[in-house]
Amino acid sequence: MKSYSIAIVFLFTFFVSLCLEQTEKPAIKEDFKPSTLNQPGQEYPQVNSQGYARFRIVAPSADSVRISLGLGGRGGTKLAKAADGSWMGTTEGPMDEGFHYYRIYVDGGAFNDPGTLNFYGSTRWESGIEIPAHDQDFYALKDVPHGNVQQVLFPSKSTNTSRRAFVYTPPGYYENTSTRYPVLYLQHGWGEDETAWSNQGHANLIMDNLIAEGKIKPFIIVMTYGMTNEIRREAGGLRNFDIKPFQTVLLDELIPYVDKNFRTLANQANRAMAGLSMGGMETKTITLNNPEVFSYYGLLSGGTYAPADIKDKSKVKLVFLSCGSKERPDGVKNAAAALKEAGFNAVSYVSEGTAHEFQTWRRSLYQLAPLLFKN
Amino acid sequence: MKSYSIAIVFLFTFFVSLCLEQTEKPAIKEDFKPSTLNQPGQEYPQVNSQGYARFRIVAPSADSVRISLGLGGRGGTKLAKAADGSWMGTTEGPMDEGFHYYRIYVDGGAFNDPGTLNFYGSTRWESGIEIPAHDQDFYALKDVPHGNVQQVLFPSKSTNTSRRAFVYTPPGYYENTSTRYPVLYLQHGWGEDETAWSNQGHANLIMDNLIAEGKIKPFIIVMTYGMTNEIRREAGGLRNFDIKPFQTVLLDELIPYVDKNFRTLANQANRAMAGLSMGGMETKTITLNNPEVFSYYGLLSGGTYAPADIKDKSKVKLVFLSCGSKERPDGVKNAAAALKEAGFNAVSYVSEGTAHEFQTWRRSLYQLAPLLFKN
Repeated sequence: MKSYSIAIVFLFTFFVSLCLEQTEKPAIKEDFKPSTLNQPGQEYPQVNSQGYARFRIVAPSADSVRISLGLGGRGGTKLAKAADGSWMGTTEGPMDEGFHYYRIYVDGGAFNDPGTLNFYGSTRWESGIEIPAHDQDFYALKDVPHGNVQQVLFPSKSTNTSRRAFVYTPPGYYENTSTRYPVLYLQHGWGEDETAWSNQGHANLIMDNLIAEGKIKPFIIVMTYGMTNEIRREAGGLRNFDIKPFQTVLLDELIPYVDKNFRTLANQANRAMAGLSMGGMETKTITLNNPEVFSYYGLLSGGTYAPADIKDKSKVKLVFLSCGSKERPDGVKNAAAALKEAGFNAVSYVSEGTAHEFQTWRRSLYQLAPLLFKN
Repeated sequence: MKSYSIAIVFLFTFFVSLCLEQTEKPAIKEDFKPSTLNQPGQEYPQVNSQGYARFRIVAPSADSVRISLGLGGRGGTKLAKAADGSWMGTTEGPMDEGFHYYRIYVDGGAFNDPGTLNFYGSTRWESGIEIPAHDQDFYALKDVPHGNVQQVLFPSKSTNTSRRAFVYTPPGYYENTSTRYPVLYLQHGWGEDETAWSNQGHANLIMDNLIAEGKIKPFIIVMTYGMTNEIRREAGGLRNFDIKPFQTVLLDELIPYVDKNFRTLANQANRAMAGLSMGGMETKTITLNNPEVFSYYGLLSGGTYAPADIKDKSKVKLVFLSCGSKERPDGVKNAAAALKEAGFNAVSYVSEGTAHEFQTWRRSLYQLAPLLFKN
């Protein structure tokens, strides 16, 4: 009987572990397709319908090739030499939906994947991959009227140079020459720059689609560099970050330039500021320092406001707080509840199944835009 | 006497070869500075005042690192392991002034240099380096009013998608709301795309500076993708290139879109087309096919027109032909002379000391712009 029960226990354990194994690692479906962010004609990296990513790097004489992307704490994805001499490998599990930065390590050196486009993040141009999301329709390029994204070079006395901003003007801007528009100032995160919201975030396509569906009142978006990369060079990092240089550029130089050169509704009631991550911290500081400039505030994975932070309740038309469900959703929910309790128009949004990444922020912008410039 | 004269000959030969050696390879000045195209905070690649380029790549376990850039036919620049474990090396000689594409080879794999920005060329995003030119002032970012470069997504029925173009609008475009402007349609070369003229070419800064100095009448520039990358995939390559798909996009879709959405002077007298290299071939074919659309023609390192090519002389206000002195300058000079002889307003320009590269084309645009829209 003993050996029998041991065999039972063994078999039971075997089947349980088999089931667990299957739960953790379902069979990988061989329906891999090139990522939508690949360079023209490039077959790799690829993504399958489950969200696994597969990489192929040509480096015939290399001793090791590794991808920084992969499941947390496991050091990314190691590639192995394939029959044709290239290096190939697949992530250990499915990735979260949406956009991810990554880099490759070839014999210990960090490079970009030659197969895919580059995106500015972590203070450098990084490789990017797109895991198709179930809700990707809201930022898809569709056959609808498109707004323009234009590079402006605005004079900045405080930094003694011409600085770059990107301005989204909604479709119809050039035809409706008497219409004036509200403006959202929208900031990127640490290590990113003014290209992030268009390139990684598809902010322009999100707007085009919302406008085409009649879900929002058209407005202008202005995106400039938040001068956040410098933080790494300062002793103490974030704690010593001085908001003043960027606040000066934004308030004394960029906003007057935009109000002069674009058909804006140039007043507090028609001006919003929002930012992601580090850009949220900037948004919080600048909106609280300057209650007469903005009336709509948005922090996307970028902290919260407490009711006591805001001196004059009548000046604030909206406080929008968001993050991914894999961040700290209770933080934004509780903060929004406290603000509501105190009589503010506060809204929280949690992006399901995403972390501190651009899919959270694409969805956040999609949620925020219809709430702006309503009052 | 014999041994004496042999010694003389030997010494003479020795000194001559010494002089030649010095002429070919002057001592390398150790005044290297980061290339102006480096990513933020990156020290390498560097360039010295003589035009030498120095590279540094971190790849501790690599067996070989090579840079594609270098003197002709010598396989580029091989890097050697430095004391700190990085790979370093300097070009064997000075490079031509201006912009150069390059890539790095790490253990046989082609990658981009993580130190520098990427530019779309050779149908991929390539590394770029800038050798300061004696005349770089004309494309420098200065404290002058700046025009905007805006991304437009225009509907294209023939290709069943929204296509991207970049539109340069001169400074004052938004203030002078009744002014209408002529338009230059400006094409990139093979393997490049619609980003090339702004990123590599600094077309916007060239225009801003010319306008600030009162040297040109402001005009709009439109840059879109010439659909030239597909050539590599066709059997027979260039010979089998069909101009029709691009001609349809340009004439039937983009020009009507631009004329509707921008304040253009929408007629042949105020429309120019120019292109570099492969874009010159496109310009030639399209202008000759459609004499009623453009009146100014420019081929930059992109071939020539013969007088017999042009049916109706009265329709052409300018033929501009250019190339670098290291290309075939006699070709453009002779072609322009033949056109003049035949009664055309033809101008040739040769960029001194440059080859089939962007410094030739920056200078060509600088020469071409003041000649446009004069009549």
